[in-house]
Amino acid sequence: MLNIGIIGAGRIGKVHAESITYHVKEAQVAAIADPYMNEATTGWAKSLGIPNIYTDYKDILKDSSIDAVLICSSTDTHADIAIEAIKANKHVFCEKPISQDLSKIKAVMDVLAGSNVKFQVGFNRRFDHNFEAVRNAVSEGKIGDVHIVKVTSRDPDAPPIEYVKVSGGMFLDMTIHDFDMVRYLTSSDVVEVYANGTALVNPAIKDAGDIDTAIITMKLSNGALAVIDNSRKADYGYDQRAEVFGSKGQVAVTNDSGSTAVISTASGVTGEKPLYFFLERYMASFSKEVSLFVQAIINDTEVPVNINDGLQPVLIAKAAKKSLDENRPVLLKEIVM
Amino acid sequence: MLNIGIIGAGRIGKVHAESITYHVKEAQVAAIADPYMNEATTGWAKSLGIPNIYTDYKDILKDSSIDAVLICSSTDTHADIAIEAIKANKHVFCEKPISQDLSKIKAVMDVLAGSNVKFQVGFNRRFDHNFEAVRNAVSEGKIGDVHIVKVTSRDPDAPPIEYVKVSGGMFLDMTIHDFDMVRYLTSSDVVEVYANGTALVNPAIKDAGDIDTAIITMKLSNGALAVIDNSRKADYGYDQRAEVFGSKGQVAVTNDSGSTAVISTASGVTGEKPLYFFLERYMASFSKEVSLFVQAIINDTEVPVNINDGLQPVLIAKAAKKSLDENRPVLLKEIVM
Amino acid sequence: MLNIGIIGAGRIGKVHAESITYHVKEAQVAAIADPYMNEATTGWAKSLGIPNIYTDYKDILKDSSIDAVLICSSTDTHADIAIEAIKANKHVFCEKPISQDLSKIKAVMDVLAGSNVKFQVGFNRRFDHNFEAVRNAVSEGKIGDVHIVKVTSRDPDAPPIEYVKVSGGMFLDMTIHDFDMVRYLTSSDVVEVYANGTALVNPAIKDAGDIDTAIITMKLSNGALAVIDNSRKADYGYDQRAEVFGSKGQVAVTNDSGSTAVISTASGVTGEKPLYFFLERYMASFSKEVSLFVQAIINDTEVPVNINDGLQPVLIAKAAKKSLDENRPVLLKEIVM
Amino acid sequence: MLNIGIIGAGRIGKVHAESITYHVKEAQVAAIADPYMNEATTGWAKSLGIPNIYTDYKDILKDSSIDAVLICSSTDTHADIAIEAIKANKHVFCEKPISQDLSKIKAVMDVLAGSNVKFQVGFNRRFDHNFEAVRNAVSEGKIGDVHIVKVTSRDPDAPPIEYVKVSGGMFLDMTIHDFDMVRYLTSSDVVEVYANGTALVNPAIKDAGDIDTAIITMKLSNGALAVIDNSRKADYGYDQRAEVFGSKGQVAVTNDSGSTAVISTASGVTGEKPLYFFLERYMASFSKEVSLFVQAIINDTEVPVNINDGLQPVLIAKAAKKSLDENRPVLLKEIVM
Repeated sequence: MLNIGIIGAGRIGKVHAESITYHVKEAQVAAIADPYMNEATTGWAKSLGIPNIYTDYKDILKDSSIDAVLICSSTDTHADIAIEAIKANKHVFCEKPISQDLSKIKAVMDVLAGSNVKFQVGFNRRFDHNFEAVRNAVSEGKIGDVHIVKVTSRDPDAPPIEYVKVSGGMFLDMTIHDFDMVRYLTSSDVVEVYANGTALVNPAIKDAGDIDTAIITMKLSNGALAVIDNSRKADYGYDQRAEVFGSKGQVAVTNDSGSTAVISTASGVTGEKPLYFFLERYMASFSKEVSLFVQAIINDTEVPVNINDGLQPVLIAKAAKKSLDENRPVLLKEIVM
Repeated sequence: MLNIGIIGAGRIGKVHAESITYHVKEAQVAAIADPYMNEATTGWAKSLGIPNIYTDYKDILKDSSIDAVLICSSTDTHADIAIEAIKANKHVFCEKPISQDLSKIKAVMDVLAGSNVKFQVGFNRRFDHNFEAVRNAVSEGKIGDVHIVKVTSRDPDAPPIEYVKVSGGMFLDMTIHDFDMVRYLTSSDVVEVYANGTALVNPAIKDAGDIDTAIITMKLSNGALAVIDNSRKADYGYDQRAEVFGSKGQVAVTNDSGSTAVISTASGVTGEKPLYFFLERYMASFSKEVSLFVQAIINDTEVPVNINDGLQPVLIAKAAKKSLDENRPVLLKEIVM
Repeated sequence: MLNIGIIGAGRIGKVHAESITYHVKEAQVAAIADPYMNEATTGWAKSLGIPNIYTDYKDILKDSSIDAVLICSSTDTHADIAIEAIKANKHVFCEKPISQDLSKIKAVMDVLAGSNVKFQVGFNRRFDHNFEAVRNAVSEGKIGDVHIVKVTSRDPDAPPIEYVKVSGGMFLDMTIHDFDMVRYLTSSDVVEVYANGTALVNPAIKDAGDIDTAIITMKLSNGALAVIDNSRKADYGYDQRAEVFGSKGQVAVTNDSGSTAVISTASGVTGEKPLYFFLERYMASFSKEVSLFVQAIINDTEVPVNINDGLQPVLIAKAAKKSLDENRPVLLKEIVM
Repeated sequence: MLNIGIIGAGRIGKVHAESITYHVKEAQVAAIADPYMNEATTGWAKSLGIPNIYTDYKDILKDSSIDAVLICSSTDTHADIAIEAIKANKHVFCEKPISQDLSKIKAVMDVLAGSNVKFQVGFNRRFDHNFEAVRNAVSEGKIGDVHIVKVTSRDPDAPPIEYVKVSGGMFLDMTIHDFDMVRYLTSSDVVEVYANGTALVNPAIKDAGDIDTAIITMKLSNGALAVIDNSRKADYGYDQRAEVFGSKGQVAVTNDSGSTAVISTASGVTGEKPLYFFLERYMASFSKEVSLFVQAIINDTEVPVNINDGLQPVLIAKAAKKSLDENRPVLLKEIVM
């Protein structure tokens, strides 16, 4: 039974705590820490049977019975805590992105290089049933050589402006998942990026120096082309689709919805909207990624999303931002760590 | 160039005249007759370039340059005109049903037996692209042996009560196409029928002695089971679907619509309703059935819908009506011609 | 925290034990009993943290700390155990069917009438997301008055002949869920049944006195018509669909599959088969039905599937069997308890 | 009755001649000219009842009874013939592109400016039922303000290398339709283009100096972003889709196929491939565009695709080629006529 400590009891920390408790048989949540730990969160943690509840994550790192930590704190703290955890010889599952600061990712990589700990990054969408089906079809050769990759990713609503201001920009905050998806679906790296972006959803987003609508094209190392289209607000809900087209055909996935019900009336033939947002659409993927992290530790095998998988999307996001700023295609190798 | 005379210039007579003129290269409409021929219809016929326009269909039968006739007059006149036409040595395409009176169908069969004319019945739905695809999948063995056949057939709106009163009842007027479809899709005959029927759409239909909603089950000569569900009024339009299930799988077809457009908004994910009614859904089938009739004449081959194919659905309809009246399954052989 | 005892540690008993442990927060499995309790099952039960493991269910009934029992034993024992449990003042969740013997169901009803215990029957499909969506659309009036109900229910493979021989026949074993579905979707009772059935999947099923393919039509108390089509073996997997058609339109649900992936190649445009069988398709419904049972106990409210809901499908199945034997429509009131 | 002369009796000239004969009631083909007129083509023309068959198109222009001409000759001759036709006071329907040479388009525009003739360009896809549905949804405001436009356009197979060499390049030969589609669907102009392109289908295409796979992004004058993805070879057939996403939702269209048949077997749930190529998919659009041209002449109204609509896609294609060559975004105003 693996003992896990969760650092950060916000939304995603809670999702992981519940996933481990109910769905990951080989592990248990032995501790949780959050500087803003309050009565409600303490009550929730106790109801899950979590024995140790802290305000300081260092209490988790000090506990020698803890095998692994999940870093679910705010993004700016990920890298520093990761380094401490590695040094404390804890296996690390780190939420995405590792950092918005490339030098900090490099620092984590350096510490990791000299250690024996497992380090997994939280790109949960890789464990979604639909995207796994695309990846499998591609890797099994069902569509031949990859020529074109298309990812559509649109949120149901724009975040608050206060959040936008500190998010690091749409590419690092939202598109980063889609950059990872392009790599995951094709098992190929991104070489060059060109980004078109604008603020059409909310002018306040523009005032905050960010965009809410984008089309980003990429050249991949296998010679294929890729495109992502993003919007911060799709009125019909969370739109998460992908297509990979190749020499023998295409594989495509569309959205999940609450049921297959179709109502036909004088007004038309109407199905349900997509599941509302990531907690609804991707809940099973959160269990699966942590379960695979636990198995990689138990079996001493490779984690499914390693630190380079954490680095690459940040590089792509940086290149996309530079492309947007300079209105020209940007090579990934122009981004200096 | 085959010369065709059209008897009856109502809706379906006009459809056939236009189909032949625009789509059937080996034939031309040489004459049209209708007792209610008026200025508008005459103008329409002239615009198509039809040289001979009559009020009496006998003028068509007398014309030795006419090779074939299409009988598009009212149902009660089909059989008598067909007999006259066969005797005049014209090939006959007869709209469905040949007659609601079995003795009249028998009379046509008797006259036909001693002749060399081709006789085709107007079950146009056999030439619809969707139902042809089902038939082909079945006959090519893609679903193995047939076990279950399901036909859904619902009109967009109930006919006027005055029409209901003279229609011969829903089974002979509407379901007759579906009875034919069961035979067509399976290449098998119906042995026994059980019908449930009621008037839920419009109580006036009940007062007129008819039904507007029905589920009819059948045992087929190949051992399979079949079911038809009917309604005189589907608020979303003309619902025309079929499924055949067998030992290796299933083939199913759904409705056609005006476009593939799907609009996703806060209200849902909405596609178009089915094409409104039979003129929209089945227009291409009208050209195709007449074209194949013309080719059967030119090449002296079998017509695709022969007089037995015209008889059987009438027998099934009679059995269904008897089943409804007596609330018991009725064997087709109970129906005496 | 409600203490639940599970009687029967076969497949469905295990499903419920895991559901309660992982998904039902207000309850825990306090005991499990099975006459064939072995090392493997004991190990499994311990891994779930079930404290009491018995071979005799009477040990559960004797335990005053147990609030409710789930009867998951073989069908022929359901009623007797249910009566004992009610007398022991335990709330009862009883798997379907309560009994194949109407007098036994009546005996349960009699004992229940004088008690204060909750009694729920295990028609889990009522808690499937798709069928709930149909029921909701109907009850919210989105399709107007119900005219036609269609249920398709086909298993991925026929059970072993040895099972067929003791199953009570397809109607009581398999179609019973579909009879319940007709009632659930329409909130209406069945008045009359006509059944067509045959053995097309496997002749040994016929030799065993049973059928494997059926179409059953029904008249409902609200005046609507219903039809179920069944097969014991659909080569493409578990086919579980329903449609309800009414005065304002139709609501229809189709199958769930493992992903939305569609692969387009030179061979066609191919999606996944339906989820394989009931454990895959209906897993979430097993948690939900027990969770609602627990809530009904805690809140002292009506259970969602009461004993009459358990009785009616057995009556319909008996009527269907009589209809098949006598080849005539059978009124439910002909079936004497 | 409008008299039409067709210049060029190749594939598209024949399509138009048959469309007019069978589907355009207000017009007739009075003459056809082709320098390679042979016995087969002459026979075909006579079978359609075309009275005048020439080898020299000037014979058509000289004929004062001819009201309008359809220019269906090779692309390099379009502009010169168009100028002659305008000077001969014939209304002109010109196949796309008007010219690959911007100065020639300008010359046509200059001559046209001083005339009273109607001039329509053959962007037939505007008259496809699916794309019309998208345009209508957008223009009716159903999806709000346009944010993102996506066009997928893939041919079923690459053209012969000999054709590739003289085609003017994929952007001018194939993508030109998609550039027009972006303008048509949004009623907006293209301001800037960035093109990624490569040869993945056939290395000989690269050797011929062309590409076969591309993703092109655009900024539109209304502030929206657009993307086109192209391939010269989709193994599953002609892939022609579009999506427009906006502030209130999305409208999307997918491919047409030969039937709605879906076959479910142990191998999966398989529908038909898209209709094979443009003659299958777009046949109805060819009739419709000519019919609307004829009506614009008869009613003296605006043509639905004017000479600016012919010019703009050529400008976009030139900009895309420049972008590909220079690997940078190119403003349309950089392209000098």
